[in-house]
Amino acid sequence: MPLAGLSFEGAGELKATADDVLWADGIAVGSPTNMGVISWRMKKFWVAEMAPHWMKIDGKIGCAFSSAGGWGGGMELACQSILTVLMNFGFLVFGVTDYVSRDMTLHYGAVSAKAPGDEQCRLACQCLGRRLAEWIATYVHGIPSEHPSLKLAERRPPHGEG
Amino acid sequence: MPLAGLSFEGAGELKATADDVLWADGIAVGSPTNMGVISWRMKKFWVAEMAPHWMKIDGKIGCAFSSAGGWGGGMELACQSILTVLMNFGFLVFGVTDYVSRDMTLHYGAVSAKAPGDEQCRLACQCLGRRLAEWIATYVHGIPSEHPSLKLAERRPPHGEG
Amino acid sequence: MPLAGLSFEGAGELKATADDVLWADGIAVGSPTNMGVISWRMKKFWVAEMAPHWMKIDGKIGCAFSSAGGWGGGMELACQSILTVLMNFGFLVFGVTDYVSRDMTLHYGAVSAKAPGDEQCRLACQCLGRRLAEWIATYVHGIPSEHPSLKLAERRPPHGEG
Amino acid sequence: MPLAGLSFEGAGELKATADDVLWADGIAVGSPTNMGVISWRMKKFWVAEMAPHWMKIDGKIGCAFSSAGGWGGGMELACQSILTVLMNFGFLVFGVTDYVSRDMTLHYGAVSAKAPGDEQCRLACQCLGRRLAEWIATYVHGIPSEHPSLKLAERRPPHGEG
Repeated sequence: MPLAGLSFEGAGELKATADDVLWADGIAVGSPTNMGVISWRMKKFWVAEMAPHWMKIDGKIGCAFSSAGGWGGGMELACQSILTVLMNFGFLVFGVTDYVSRDMTLHYGAVSAKAPGDEQCRLACQCLGRRLAEWIATYVHGIPSEHPSLKLAERRPPHGEG
Repeated sequence: MPLAGLSFEGAGELKATADDVLWADGIAVGSPTNMGVISWRMKKFWVAEMAPHWMKIDGKIGCAFSSAGGWGGGMELACQSILTVLMNFGFLVFGVTDYVSRDMTLHYGAVSAKAPGDEQCRLACQCLGRRLAEWIATYVHGIPSEHPSLKLAERRPPHGEG
Repeated sequence: MPLAGLSFEGAGELKATADDVLWADGIAVGSPTNMGVISWRMKKFWVAEMAPHWMKIDGKIGCAFSSAGGWGGGMELACQSILTVLMNFGFLVFGVTDYVSRDMTLHYGAVSAKAPGDEQCRLACQCLGRRLAEWIATYVHGIPSEHPSLKLAERRPPHGEG
Repeated sequence: MPLAGLSFEGAGELKATADDVLWADGIAVGSPTNMGVISWRMKKFWVAEMAPHWMKIDGKIGCAFSSAGGWGGGMELACQSILTVLMNFGFLVFGVTDYVSRDMTLHYGAVSAKAPGDEQCRLACQCLGRRLAEWIATYVHGIPSEHPSLKLAERRPPHGEG
C-alpha cells in the first residue's frame, strides 16, 4: 500500500524530489495556510520538480491538509488550492465524511488552527492517512475488504446523528 | 450607513424579498454550511428574487458568514461560494484581517462550528458587521475617518504579533 | 462499468431520484453555471434526495461539467462547487489532463460558453465520460489495462507539446 | 485615480516591489494560470514583499486576470486564488457584470485562452481596468458620477438580453 506524505512547514526549503511522488500510489500533501492558498514553496515544487512528469502520472489518489493561525484563517481554502494542483495532474482527490470529535471533521482535508498539536487534530491527520490507505488498498491494490463502507462499525458519524 | 443582513438558518423558507437588498449600501449574507456550498434556499433567493435586478445594483459592498457541523466541515468554502454569488452581482466583497481571539479570525467571512453561540463566534460576527459598516461609511458615505487604518488602536492583530 | 450522468438544464424540475446515483460506481454531474455556483435545483437534489444516504456511499468516482453564458462567466467555479458537493459525500473527484483541441481542455471539468453545441465542447464531454469510465474500469472493476497511462498513444497533450 | 497593475508572465523574476502596491488605491493582479492557482512567483511576491505591510493596507480595491493554455484550463480558478490573496490583505475585490462580446465576460476576473492577444480578450482587460478606475473614483475619490450604475448607456449586458 505505497503512500507518501509531502508537507512543508515554515521557512526552510522543501527537500522533496519528484521521486518522492513518483513511486507512490497516493499522496497526502500539506502546506501551511498562507493567504488562503498553497504556499509558494509547495507550489514551486509541483512546477519545478513535477511538471516534467505531467500527463504521465494521472490516477494517483490525493488528499490535503493545512494549518492556519486561527479558525477562519483560510485552512479550508488552502486545502482546496492544494487539491486543485493535484487535480491538474489528473489525480483523484477526496475528503473524509467521518468526524473525529464532536467539533471536528475533515470533509475537504485535515485542518488545524495554530500548529497541529492537539488531540482532535492528531486524530484528523490519522483519519486522513487511514482513508488514503484504504482507497489505495481498495482501488489500486484490489482489496475490496478495505473499502470504508464495509467497516461501518469503525466509522465515526457526526455526534448525535449516528 | 444603511446595511442589511440576510441569513438563512435551517429548514424554513427564506422570508427575504428583493427590497431587503435593494435599499442597502452593503450586505452580510449568511448560510448554513451545507455540503461546502451556499444552501439551495439562499441560492434560490438570489436567482428568483434578485436576478431581475442583475446589472442594476453593482457596487454594493458584501461579506459572508456561515456555520458548519464541525471545523473542517466546509464553512470557509461556503463563505467563498456566497462571495462568488455576490461578485456575480458586481458587489465588492471583503474579509477581515483582524483576529477576535487567539484562535479565531474571519479572513474570508465569519465562521463557526455548530450553532454560532460561543463568545469568539459572537465577536467574529460583530467584527464583520462593524467592518461592513466602516467600509460603507468610508466609501459610500464619504466619511474617511471611519477607515479602519485610522483606528489602529482598536484593531486586533494576531496574538503575539502585534 | 456502471456509470451515470446527472445534469440539469434550465427551468424545469430535476427528475432524478436517489436510485439514479446509488446504483452507479461513478457519476458525471452537470449544472448550468448560475452565479458561479451549482444551480439551486441541483444542490437541492443532493440535499433532499441524497442526504439520507450520506456516509453510506463514500468512494464513488465523480466529475463535473457546466456551461455559462460566456467565457469568464464562472463555469470553472461552478464545476468546483459541484466537485465540493461530491467530495462532501466522500467521492473521489477528478479532472482530465488531456486537451481536446488547441484551445480547450477540461482540467477541472468539461466547460462550455453558451449551450454546449460546438465540436470541441462535444469532444470535451466525450473525453470526460471516457475518463470516468476508465477510472471505474481500472479502480472499481480491476481492469488495469484501462488505465489511461497505458494508452498514451490515444492521449491528447497540449498542441505543440507532445 | 491612482491604480496599479501587477502581472507576471513566464519564467523571469517578478520585478515589482512593495512600493508598486503601497501607493495605489487599487490594483489589478495578473498571473499565468498554472495548475489552477496563482503562480508561485506572484504568491512569493505577496509573502516576501507585502507581508510586512499586512494589516496596514486594508481597503484597497482589487481585481484579477489570468490566461491559461486553453478554456477549461483553470483561469477562473487562478483568478479566484489571486482574489483570495487580496482578500487576505483586507482588500475589497470585484468582478465585472458586463459582457465584452457575445461569448466573453469577466464576472470573476479577465481571462484568456493562450496568450491574451485577441480582440475580445483585449476588450476584457480594458473593461476590467476601467471598472477598477470607476470604483476607485467613486469610492476612494468621492466622485459619485463615476459609478457604473449612472452610465447604463455605456454598459454591455449579455447579447440578446439588454
